[in-house]
Amino acid sequence: MNYKDIREECVASNKELQSLGLIDITFGNVSVLDPAAGVFAIKPSGVPYDALTPEQMVIVDLEGKIVEGDLRPSSDEPTHRRLFIELGDKGITSVVHTHSRNAVGFAQAERSIPCLGTTHCDYFRGAVPVTRPMTVEEVEGAYEWETGNVIVELFSEVNPLEVTAALVRNHGPFVWGKNGAKAVETAFALEIVADMAAKTLALNPAAAGAPAHLLKKHYDRKHGPGAYYGQK
Amino acid sequence: MNYKDIREECVASNKELQSLGLIDITFGNVSVLDPAAGVFAIKPSGVPYDALTPEQMVIVDLEGKIVEGDLRPSSDEPTHRRLFIELGDKGITSVVHTHSRNAVGFAQAERSIPCLGTTHCDYFRGAVPVTRPMTVEEVEGAYEWETGNVIVELFSEVNPLEVTAALVRNHGPFVWGKNGAKAVETAFALEIVADMAAKTLALNPAAAGAPAHLLKKHYDRKHGPGAYYGQK
Amino acid sequence: MNYKDIREECVASNKELQSLGLIDITFGNVSVLDPAAGVFAIKPSGVPYDALTPEQMVIVDLEGKIVEGDLRPSSDEPTHRRLFIELGDKGITSVVHTHSRNAVGFAQAERSIPCLGTTHCDYFRGAVPVTRPMTVEEVEGAYEWETGNVIVELFSEVNPLEVTAALVRNHGPFVWGKNGAKAVETAFALEIVADMAAKTLALNPAAAGAPAHLLKKHYDRKHGPGAYYGQK
Amino acid sequence: MNYKDIREECVASNKELQSLGLIDITFGNVSVLDPAAGVFAIKPSGVPYDALTPEQMVIVDLEGKIVEGDLRPSSDEPTHRRLFIELGDKGITSVVHTHSRNAVGFAQAERSIPCLGTTHCDYFRGAVPVTRPMTVEEVEGAYEWETGNVIVELFSEVNPLEVTAALVRNHGPFVWGKNGAKAVETAFALEIVADMAAKTLALNPAAAGAPAHLLKKHYDRKHGPGAYYGQK
Repeated sequence: MNYKDIREECVASNKELQSLGLIDITFGNVSVLDPAAGVFAIKPSGVPYDALTPEQMVIVDLEGKIVEGDLRPSSDEPTHRRLFIELGDKGITSVVHTHSRNAVGFAQAERSIPCLGTTHCDYFRGAVPVTRPMTVEEVEGAYEWETGNVIVELFSEVNPLEVTAALVRNHGPFVWGKNGAKAVETAFALEIVADMAAKTLALNPAAAGAPAHLLKKHYDRKHGPGAYYGQK
Repeated sequence: MNYKDIREECVASNKELQSLGLIDITFGNVSVLDPAAGVFAIKPSGVPYDALTPEQMVIVDLEGKIVEGDLRPSSDEPTHRRLFIELGDKGITSVVHTHSRNAVGFAQAERSIPCLGTTHCDYFRGAVPVTRPMTVEEVEGAYEWETGNVIVELFSEVNPLEVTAALVRNHGPFVWGKNGAKAVETAFALEIVADMAAKTLALNPAAAGAPAHLLKKHYDRKHGPGAYYGQK
Repeated sequence: MNYKDIREECVASNKELQSLGLIDITFGNVSVLDPAAGVFAIKPSGVPYDALTPEQMVIVDLEGKIVEGDLRPSSDEPTHRRLFIELGDKGITSVVHTHSRNAVGFAQAERSIPCLGTTHCDYFRGAVPVTRPMTVEEVEGAYEWETGNVIVELFSEVNPLEVTAALVRNHGPFVWGKNGAKAVETAFALEIVADMAAKTLALNPAAAGAPAHLLKKHYDRKHGPGAYYGQK
Repeated sequence: MNYKDIREECVASNKELQSLGLIDITFGNVSVLDPAAGVFAIKPSGVPYDALTPEQMVIVDLEGKIVEGDLRPSSDEPTHRRLFIELGDKGITSVVHTHSRNAVGFAQAERSIPCLGTTHCDYFRGAVPVTRPMTVEEVEGAYEWETGNVIVELFSEVNPLEVTAALVRNHGPFVWGKNGAKAVETAFALEIVADMAAKTLALNPAAAGAPAHLLKKHYDRKHGPGAYYGQK
């Protein structure tokens, strides 16, 4: 068995999705990239999380060729791949997709998740954007690859290293990070802030949100050069 | 003990309803049809799920006669039977009824569950419809049989093999499938999409929903002739 | 130890409140009446549910005298007593009080819980009413006894054997039944129908509710002379 | 190891936050003051709750000097300290901070939690207030200390011994009490009343709330000189 490290990280991260209550049935998947080898491990399609083994992970290269694996990869594999092509050389080695319910609520409402407070600021430097509608051609063509493309389009306006998630319209969230554990944690934080934002907007549909200085302060104290949250 | 297979599948599926959190108290039931024998196994009325045994399942034929069983069948038995008469020769061998809370929310609001995103598209080819109001005569007459009739009326506009669920107005969901496990999974998916739809409509009461090409794409990639979701 | 039966039923029912998730901290209590002896057992005030023992239950007579017990009874004791005086000779031997969150939502919104569907009809023959505001004199006087009085006032319009619960305005639900297990089950059903009603009203603020013939049908099939729900 | 008592109380209270479901990831912390020694124990920053040990707690004095500890204290340490300086001589020896979701909903909606019913009255003598917006200078300066200051500003209008919590705008709740267990219980009660208040306002945006005499009655029967809730 080759690619043991990314296979094991991929299994552990997929199982963590389930432990955190982020997925129902088989609605979600994690992939983990080995940047040096130019391949990633991804969950096989439609297989329950409980019984996943490192051997079952499918190893795919950046052209979409299955390098190792007897099972079909997640049908979302081209979306993950598109993101690794864009972000792999920027230190992103894991992509997570879920249908977590509050984040899906925003995606189906065709709304970005606004930055309403410090919980959000601690994870995302600004609103988590929703993609534009996909065209008939995109949906009927290489659908999952085009799904990656509409996410990547957002990066002209949003820094993907500071806002490490996006909502695919009428679908749900994709999240990325420097490793599987971090990407899954961010997917969990996204669902939490979506829940908080829904509660907030129910109480005050015109909530102004966190001011820019509060966003900068919280984001930087955790992620900036002078970060002082957590241990050294 | 005859009809061992459908008795066991019926017990397992009823217990799975409880494991998935789809029922409270004794508000739900699953039945399983043996099409060759023309009989189905159904949960006895008002009996808790934990202690259900295959022996307790009630075996009923398609005329409503109890073929085997010392206990009363679920009071909803005629509704299940009506659906088996309509759908049994189309490969449907299990019917599930729950009072899962979000699906009931739509049924009580007298609204169909609109198709707002891909989670819905993956299970149902379009909105999950709500039945018309039942007349005084229908309610005071053969109520549970007539409940089946108002569901069957919907099939003039909705293909019951593509939208495998309906909401009985002011009541709750009935769901069907090719076996007990699949029908229960669909009842779970229905509750999930109802939850997501409620969250969506709270954020955007005018949400446009998944466009037709997205619905077709997702439904077909899982259920169409060229399906590529899951394993071969 | 006298009154062993009602002490044990009282402990079991109080613990069941917690198992069902109906109470937080110590926000709830169950009492059980021995009609022949003219006394009831009630939870001691402020004591956690986990460690409750039959010996700790406080035995109170219908004049409010503590017959047996080293601990203070629940501060709501006079409300329970007022209800037993009114309903004890009608077969009601248990009273439950909770602060279950959805039922409290209606009580604080100063709204009755309307009968919107069959889940409600199966338990309550019509809306679960909310009490009138209590006067300054009532609150500053024998507050907990007066709380019982405003509940009893509702019985001029609602049959307490058919609608076995009420919401005390700006407070929460009181529920009663023929024994502890049944009263607790009804308190659980009340919270479920309150949750469903809140979800329904969010989707359709003008929801018409279950028509009278549907209410009669469901209530009677479970509670009427020709009841056919459950086992004989 | 010095300060064993406050270290142990601090660990137990932090773990209790997690058991009660009040925190996600590492979004919360408890501190415990030793008033005689003029120091407090506080959770180290970014460390998971499961593995916390008394040795890891950081001991800080009231000038902010780390007296004992190898780890960084919670980044919120100056907020806790500001509150101990204000309230330590009034019997407050524990401060709790969480991002519990319903309380955050109000903080992000920039609304106080109104006193809508007796659950609230039992814990807080009136609305739980939200702080004013912090200025750019406050956020860019000694941010966490200034966070304490905007909470303390509220005490000109609210008695901090009767309303033992505040919502920091666009952030979340801070709660205090006479010891760690009580402060954590109050943080839990705050989340419960926030949940109930959100449910209430969804059903009746103009809910009038608990009248003054009801608030006084409930607060006093639990906290006043003639309190009769709980055991002597």
